[in-house]
Amino acid sequence: MKRLVSYIFIAFSMIQCVEDKNANHQKDVEQIQQLAKDFSSYVNSSNYEMIGASYTKDAKIFPQRGKIISGRTAIVKYWTLPEGFQTKNHKITPSEITVVEDTAYDYGHYEGTTVKADGEESSWKGKYIIVWKRVDGKWKMYLDIWNSI
Amino acid sequence: MKRLVSYIFIAFSMIQCVEDKNANHQKDVEQIQQLAKDFSSYVNSSNYEMIGASYTKDAKIFPQRGKIISGRTAIVKYWTLPEGFQTKNHKITPSEITVVEDTAYDYGHYEGTTVKADGEESSWKGKYIIVWKRVDGKWKMYLDIWNSI
Repeated sequence: MKRLVSYIFIAFSMIQCVEDKNANHQKDVEQIQQLAKDFSSYVNSSNYEMIGASYTKDAKIFPQRGKIISGRTAIVKYWTLPEGFQTKNHKITPSEITVVEDTAYDYGHYEGTTVKADGEESSWKGKYIIVWKRVDGKWKMYLDIWNSI
Repeated sequence: MKRLVSYIFIAFSMIQCVEDKNANHQKDVEQIQQLAKDFSSYVNSSNYEMIGASYTKDAKIFPQRGKIISGRTAIVKYWTLPEGFQTKNHKITPSEITVVEDTAYDYGHYEGTTVKADGEESSWKGKYIIVWKRVDGKWKMYLDIWNSI
């Protein structure tokens, strides 16, 4: 009898564990949605420190027509606009965010406008895949690739 | 004492489980490496049936300068070359394949040459991210994005 009670307890613990996991996944998805919004605000305000902090230290980005860029310093350099340039209306619209343990993959669309020093504007949009990693409890971008539409 | 033995047994089972998982991961990585080689051979031989079968039914591809293409039929249509055209020397070189449960992410480089009907050749290369899913025990591409170098 005692053993049966133990088994039932273990079974319930396992169900509880699975339920907690699903609940956490929803929380993780919401966190990643918020981080995508935050990232756009950093791009729009040229906040390069926070752009860098949005990536893992060993992150890789895959810009169009260029090599894979690895590591925060190089990534921030890529994002840094020339003097007088600014980005506005940067927006990320995720289509799906799926969390698997401490990894998540996320795909969707992005858009934005570059305002040049002379005021000329050019808008762009495209699609992306991001692989996120949970590092010390915080979600960071590990792989970030995109191409235009 | 009996309880202690049970606990030790459970602890060893858990360690065994983790070890099995790591061993499987290595096997999974090798399977995905082989599937990448297989995929190139299908592209080089215009084997559209096997190109389609390399993707999950609900897969998405992200071609350059176009919309996200969803589902096997549309994906095969994208890969189908015009009459008289052929691809040769298609090759995928993964830099990292990481397996997390029934999901894997994979990034690296691709290259190939298109031979046109008149014999003219154009070579291309670029970088990619693929998200793989294990479906009925087989790894299939779920998300496939690339851009040129």
